[in-house]
Amino acid sequence: MNSKKKFAVVLAGSGVYDGSEIHEATLALYSISKNGGSYQIFAPNINQYHVINHITGEEMPETRNVLVEAARIARGDIKDLKDFSADDFDAILFPGGFGVAKNLCTFAFDGVDCKVNPDAELALKAMHKAKKPIGALCISPALIAKVLGEVELTIGEDEETAAAITAMGATHVTTTHGEIVFDKENKIVTTPCYMLDASIAQIGDGADNVVKTIMAL
Amino acid sequence: MNSKKKFAVVLAGSGVYDGSEIHEATLALYSISKNGGSYQIFAPNINQYHVINHITGEEMPETRNVLVEAARIARGDIKDLKDFSADDFDAILFPGGFGVAKNLCTFAFDGVDCKVNPDAELALKAMHKAKKPIGALCISPALIAKVLGEVELTIGEDEETAAAITAMGATHVTTTHGEIVFDKENKIVTTPCYMLDASIAQIGDGADNVVKTIMAL
Repeated sequence: MNSKKKFAVVLAGSGVYDGSEIHEATLALYSISKNGGSYQIFAPNINQYHVINHITGEEMPETRNVLVEAARIARGDIKDLKDFSADDFDAILFPGGFGVAKNLCTFAFDGVDCKVNPDAELALKAMHKAKKPIGALCISPALIAKVLGEVELTIGEDEETAAAITAMGATHVTTTHGEIVFDKENKIVTTPCYMLDASIAQIGDGADNVVKTIMAL
Repeated sequence: MNSKKKFAVVLAGSGVYDGSEIHEATLALYSISKNGGSYQIFAPNINQYHVINHITGEEMPETRNVLVEAARIARGDIKDLKDFSADDFDAILFPGGFGVAKNLCTFAFDGVDCKVNPDAELALKAMHKAKKPIGALCISPALIAKVLGEVELTIGEDEETAAAITAMGATHVTTTHGEIVFDKENKIVTTPCYMLDASIAQIGDGADNVVKTIMAL
């Protein structure tokens, strides 16, 4: 186990309904730190698709920037995703949240025909080409499937999402709380997190299992 | 150890510079869940003192509501702090972040002469009167000192803040990463978290030590 692994963690805002899921992001960072690794957080410098009131679920009449909001989770220590270089990192990790399917790609609206943010696509393809590990939690495997196609992954057990992932060329494996799917050939590690009705303790388990699997590579 | 303890967790927004510190809040919830407890999140229904761009540190020309923003950490499952009843909970816990010193009280601006949000004051006094445990991370002990006065607690090692806490009638004990101060008489458990230059793994240690100490009461 290389305990000095450097992770790039890609965020999509701050908040489950329009950005990165905060528990998944935080517990992924916690696991990296706890297991002796280091991280740099990135996000694209674009406006969020929209802003959701997290109590009512309704859209708010304002504009927020993905990089600026993600900086709340990063405590200000964040970089523009367009400045990401695969040479600088041993692994890349995508926490979940609707922001992945609204800001990093348009999967929430367009399903299999979704468009992908160019910076996210470049980062993913560069890491895959360099044969470096990719971790993805919750809905993020949909982004991985769209960009990389023939890979094996999990979003838990939601049939509609699993069918979309299959339609994008990937193989979906059903999982439950804390379980991971490890595509050894492509070095992709995924876990369902809040794609299931989970407790925050179960989110910690899933994130930790993904991070530890990547650490051991 | 009562593994069924019900915690009220009081938030002050979402983001270290104008709300609740996200890592501290998330890792406190994680520890409660992992150790078999349950939680309900609360926040006051008031506007934030201001909104800070977490990259530049500058004020943004907008208005955000503490309850609505805290709902991002709570995934929507949050209650107005004015509806808090001490009868419903075994313990109350305050994560840190500048929001505690800007929204729950005005300690960031007024120091020892700070004013306290009436809902936060009522909740704290009710739990103290009921002899139920109170947990506080990071800067939150300053709020506790202002409301309860003669108690023993820690904000780490910052001399200026410790002096202000002493001036408010409390006893300050210097601590380092992950350490707690446990005021047995008043059932108050505190830890410095990001009042020190800490890693997120150390935040997890501190939060976990506070939660486990309360669980054991």
